[in-house]
Amino acid sequence: MIERMTQEHVQPTIIYEYPLLERVRTYLRLEHILQALQPSIPVDQYNYTRYFSALFDIVELCERSDVRTDVQKDLERRKTQLKLWAQHPDVNLEQLQQTQTRVCEALAAIQPMSRVGSSLKQHRLLSTLRQRFGMPGGTCNFDVPQLHYWLHQPQALRDADTQQWWSELTVLAHGMALELELMRSQAHFRPVIAKNGLIQESIEPLSLLRIRIPTTVPAYPVISGHKQRFSIRFLRYEPILGKASLDEDIEIELALCP
Amino acid sequence: MIERMTQEHVQPTIIYEYPLLERVRTYLRLEHILQALQPSIPVDQYNYTRYFSALFDIVELCERSDVRTDVQKDLERRKTQLKLWAQHPDVNLEQLQQTQTRVCEALAAIQPMSRVGSSLKQHRLLSTLRQRFGMPGGTCNFDVPQLHYWLHQPQALRDADTQQWWSELTVLAHGMALELELMRSQAHFRPVIAKNGLIQESIEPLSLLRIRIPTTVPAYPVISGHKQRFSIRFLRYEPILGKASLDEDIEIELALCP
Repeated sequence: MIERMTQEHVQPTIIYEYPLLERVRTYLRLEHILQALQPSIPVDQYNYTRYFSALFDIVELCERSDVRTDVQKDLERRKTQLKLWAQHPDVNLEQLQQTQTRVCEALAAIQPMSRVGSSLKQHRLLSTLRQRFGMPGGTCNFDVPQLHYWLHQPQALRDADTQQWWSELTVLAHGMALELELMRSQAHFRPVIAKNGLIQESIEPLSLLRIRIPTTVPAYPVISGHKQRFSIRFLRYEPILGKASLDEDIEIELALCP
Repeated sequence: MIERMTQEHVQPTIIYEYPLLERVRTYLRLEHILQALQPSIPVDQYNYTRYFSALFDIVELCERSDVRTDVQKDLERRKTQLKLWAQHPDVNLEQLQQTQTRVCEALAAIQPMSRVGSSLKQHRLLSTLRQRFGMPGGTCNFDVPQLHYWLHQPQALRDADTQQWWSELTVLAHGMALELELMRSQAHFRPVIAKNGLIQESIEPLSLLRIRIPTTVPAYPVISGHKQRFSIRFLRYEPILGKASLDEDIEIELALCP
């Protein structure tokens, strides 16, 4: 996900993630798209394409699968898990209670929610725009003059609109972010050597695979897998020529999140 | 297109354009999309969606219609037209010759061109990405790890790539921009009153309709038309309620470009 420098890693790394469950796949997609909708980024004539395509992608993903119910069930599971952990003698109770509170609050917020994006669909500009966004160059001023008009209004008007649209998504976004945070915190990175550029492992059922690679490795990982088995090989970045695998031993780090 | 303040117009205005020919429609779409590809904007983790969707839209539009041939024919016509104008007694010969030179140079550059985007298709990152771009959130790091890798390379590497991709498009972009510039310069804005918020006119064959509206008018124009007839009505911007036409006399400006 994010380039990070940890205390152990003075050299910069790239983190890749691979979901091993369908719903985690959807969460990662949503998390990825939601970055473009942060209300701290004012929408204007130059960046509106990114903004609206993100917004419509979110609506489409939430139409396809019932993300709200998935997040709710996952957070319920976390709640049960945290209760069990509280009985462990070595646990940091204060920290655990903080997490419990966050989970309970997220659950309380998510329960009364109606389907995500239902009120976004009633906004005339959004529903017109959504139809046009699949067409190449389909948002010219002669296609959707109302968008052109909106983009020429004072920034404060657009900010109020985007703030309101964001508010339709925040409960789900926060609940999902918490679930992903807890999922990622379930496993630490451990060093692994990819023998001849290949890793294959059979595993206990997993949700998420995380790989941390030094930026000095001139290749990216190609991962395949399902709940109980995965393989990773490395391909050199070759813009023109065919695929070239990196057949050396490569030191990377893996985190297997259950 | 662009918000402008001219000497006659102390108040800010919005310009809307409406193409009356199919090929002009394509030119305006391309011009609109090309803004996102200017090499002065470095592509990074935050704006790459806008960049690539613009690039793929250009490739798709150029696949659908033979823009290169259209621009070439249009510039040939301009060349003939400029020759005729040169015989007019009142013409500013120096300025006309400058334009003639620009047209001839653009034609010379465009003639040997192969189909736009053909070499872009050979780039492996681009061809993989293009398949993924239609899917909501389809460019996560687990979908296209090579994109994630590319986005974590030094900016200079990405700049070199985007510069090269841009260079595939510049000849066409410049030729088309010149044709649009000449087209727009064929007509001046003239004041018109939209009686009860409506304008209907029968016209000599036109290429492009341009409308300049003060930002104080709380409505956007809805235009329909073909080569020899057009109508413009005005709708209030109503985000939630139904369409509401603005049935007052509205002072606007029109430019009819042949």
